[in-house]
Amino acid sequence: MSNMTQRRGRLRPAPEGFLSPEEIREVETGRRGFLRRSLALAGGAAVATVAGKAAAAQGEGDPAILDLPPWSTSLGKGVATQPYGMPSSYEKNLVRRQSPGLTQVPQSSVAFTPLQGLFGIITPSGLHFERHHQGWVDIDPNQHRLMINGLVKNPKVYTMDDLMRMPSVSRIHFIECGANTGMEWGNVAVPTVQYTHGMLSCSEFTGVPLSVLLEDCGFDKKNGKYVLAEGADGSGMTRTIAIDRALDDVIVVWGQNGEMLRPENGYPLRLVVPGVQGVSSVKWLRRIKVGDMPFAAKDEAVHYVDLMPDGTLRQYTSVQECKSVITSPSGGQFLMEKGFYNITGLAWSGRGRVKRVDVSVDGGRNWRTARLETPVLSKALTRFNIDWNWDGKPATLQSRAIDETGFVQPKIRQLREVRGTRSIYHNNAIQSWNVAESGEVSNVQVD
Amino acid sequence: MSNMTQRRGRLRPAPEGFLSPEEIREVETGRRGFLRRSLALAGGAAVATVAGKAAAAQGEGDPAILDLPPWSTSLGKGVATQPYGMPSSYEKNLVRRQSPGLTQVPQSSVAFTPLQGLFGIITPSGLHFERHHQGWVDIDPNQHRLMINGLVKNPKVYTMDDLMRMPSVSRIHFIECGANTGMEWGNVAVPTVQYTHGMLSCSEFTGVPLSVLLEDCGFDKKNGKYVLAEGADGSGMTRTIAIDRALDDVIVVWGQNGEMLRPENGYPLRLVVPGVQGVSSVKWLRRIKVGDMPFAAKDEAVHYVDLMPDGTLRQYTSVQECKSVITSPSGGQFLMEKGFYNITGLAWSGRGRVKRVDVSVDGGRNWRTARLETPVLSKALTRFNIDWNWDGKPATLQSRAIDETGFVQPKIRQLREVRGTRSIYHNNAIQSWNVAESGEVSNVQVD
Repeated sequence: MSNMTQRRGRLRPAPEGFLSPEEIREVETGRRGFLRRSLALAGGAAVATVAGKAAAAQGEGDPAILDLPPWSTSLGKGVATQPYGMPSSYEKNLVRRQSPGLTQVPQSSVAFTPLQGLFGIITPSGLHFERHHQGWVDIDPNQHRLMINGLVKNPKVYTMDDLMRMPSVSRIHFIECGANTGMEWGNVAVPTVQYTHGMLSCSEFTGVPLSVLLEDCGFDKKNGKYVLAEGADGSGMTRTIAIDRALDDVIVVWGQNGEMLRPENGYPLRLVVPGVQGVSSVKWLRRIKVGDMPFAAKDEAVHYVDLMPDGTLRQYTSVQECKSVITSPSGGQFLMEKGFYNITGLAWSGRGRVKRVDVSVDGGRNWRTARLETPVLSKALTRFNIDWNWDGKPATLQSRAIDETGFVQPKIRQLREVRGTRSIYHNNAIQSWNVAESGEVSNVQVD
Repeated sequence: MSNMTQRRGRLRPAPEGFLSPEEIREVETGRRGFLRRSLALAGGAAVATVAGKAAAAQGEGDPAILDLPPWSTSLGKGVATQPYGMPSSYEKNLVRRQSPGLTQVPQSSVAFTPLQGLFGIITPSGLHFERHHQGWVDIDPNQHRLMINGLVKNPKVYTMDDLMRMPSVSRIHFIECGANTGMEWGNVAVPTVQYTHGMLSCSEFTGVPLSVLLEDCGFDKKNGKYVLAEGADGSGMTRTIAIDRALDDVIVVWGQNGEMLRPENGYPLRLVVPGVQGVSSVKWLRRIKVGDMPFAAKDEAVHYVDLMPDGTLRQYTSVQECKSVITSPSGGQFLMEKGFYNITGLAWSGRGRVKRVDVSVDGGRNWRTARLETPVLSKALTRFNIDWNWDGKPATLQSRAIDETGFVQPKIRQLREVRGTRSIYHNNAIQSWNVAESGEVSNVQVD
């Protein structure tokens, strides 16, 4: 770290960063020297401006005094100009993106979270990934109801007001689609981390534990073995959840990152099943039914099943196993000079807490242990950081997470040996990013 | 909790909730019976609709099958309809609000966070409170620079790219304006918690520790006793920070709740000084200067000082001491029936972790200990919850926080005995909300 700024490195996240197409072309054509000079020049002038005036303001007679930038010499905008605030106009490219051609209609598609430009563990609600089966709806909360029926003594129908006055909990959890990183089962090298891992988000959720509602309705403790969760959107999404899990940490949620859920994420009510593939966290939740056997709904019998090498289908493989990914540097970004970089990424486990994350810059031959940012929470994203001095030679970046159960994130080869290459779901393999001599970062598959 | 839904209670947050002016008038004029009947009727119809059809879908032949609501029978909107998502159209009233007449121009004013409608500990960035001295600006990150000078071996000027490749940390901290709850020093009973306590927000911040930058510039460890932080907006806000604190947990921040800072909160760069009054967390940070004595800037010599009973001014009273407030039920809300309610609120301390929160419903005669939601983090908001069965009689709700140093949040009388009634800053007294027999909740001052 002592050489950190002596040997400066530039990393520009593309395509969401501040780099212009011209600048990217400069990098791609190898004329980085020219680019560096022009940037330094532009930077130098601005520096003299700010530093000179600032120094002069303190009466120190530093470098030539130039004009201060306009934002330092003018009256800004008033408070509550945006009663509900929005990102800077310079951040317009950091958005959810749909994968072109992935599905036939956008109502049954995916919009991916731009992980390459995010920090920490909280995903801004406006950038939470989307996965719908019949499009999203904005339900009138005064008309929305949750029914609990089936093997219960007192079937009940709750209004939002009924639910929101109940004992509530707030917990930070990730939601990951079971199909996240699904393209990589084959040999498709999706270019950026937004598309490889962007069906992943993490929020602080607030709601009433499902166990409180089941108790409130007097569920049948002898015969009630499973619950069915049903959504109120056009797809009528239904999922089975075993009663042990339902009574454990499942929450009937109205709050996300401090405010009401967003419409695309189930407003006004959704289920959150921590650690389990996202499809079980049914959005626009309208019903919980208690039963004595799995419900074998369409979306658990036909979809969200794992196609094995012998042609059989594995069902109810719900838990999202321990996984991690380096979000920066990552595919589509450029290292514009050799020198110091902070390698950063995310780790998570559907089984509990992340215990350790190792990082390799040589394709898995050598590993160093990364720093984990606190808090490290159960079934939540964990942010890791580690220092790296790039020597300008080709490198292959990998991260490997280990959770508190001792599970070690596998290599893609290890997964394929067991589960083949035709599955869609539950790929938690180690991700590799290649750094070329040019500085270009790209997705590669390393055995 | 066993009687939770037998004796239902309704709580409608006003003015940001779902209650119409007509409905509020019903409550105010005491005709709650009529309102209750009409709500039950409306609810019943919708219930039959959803429950009937849902049951029918499972082939159970439950109550009369009515039409499903339109959102269950139509194709919704596609993914990425909002590449950057927004709250539901039903949440339009939950916004930051400026206090009318508080200041002469909105550029040197306050917009308050609507705490009464928020959950958990994360404040959505779009609802983070605003306090500017010369308005807010949206600075071009490519042009922004941070200079470090003064008693340093190597004065440096950093671009955003320089900073963002450095070793970063992510931490959840509150920011509270020193003047939060300032009106209550006198006897002004501001009506809602948005205006009494809404200069308070909490975010996950990401950036480089100031200590790393000071080391990088080789600061003078013998003579460097203070640093000055300077903003790039028109106000040129400057604040002194003692070197021990600067080297402890102060962060030079670009990330807030996972994405880049919002313009109103200092985009692209701000200081975060955990636990200290908000004004020290200088926004649009352009300079850190190391010096051998406090800088006595305008905003620490004339403003942000505590006016004592004897007419003297206390200076550099920076830390936000242990404090808490019940956010719901709170002033401006109505309890529409007696019965079960979840009392919820926030506690925090600039000295470290919150250890315990007690809640009273009889103006401080009896106290019960509330549940704290995890994680409980140092210098961060902590969410508390506690059950309450309202018997329909007048009640006075209070919360009292105790931090890990053993500091107990004081009564307003205790604070006034020492500091009088003319101060503006650092009021951390216990807040009292009166619940009238009508169900109306209002701000009262209880000795």
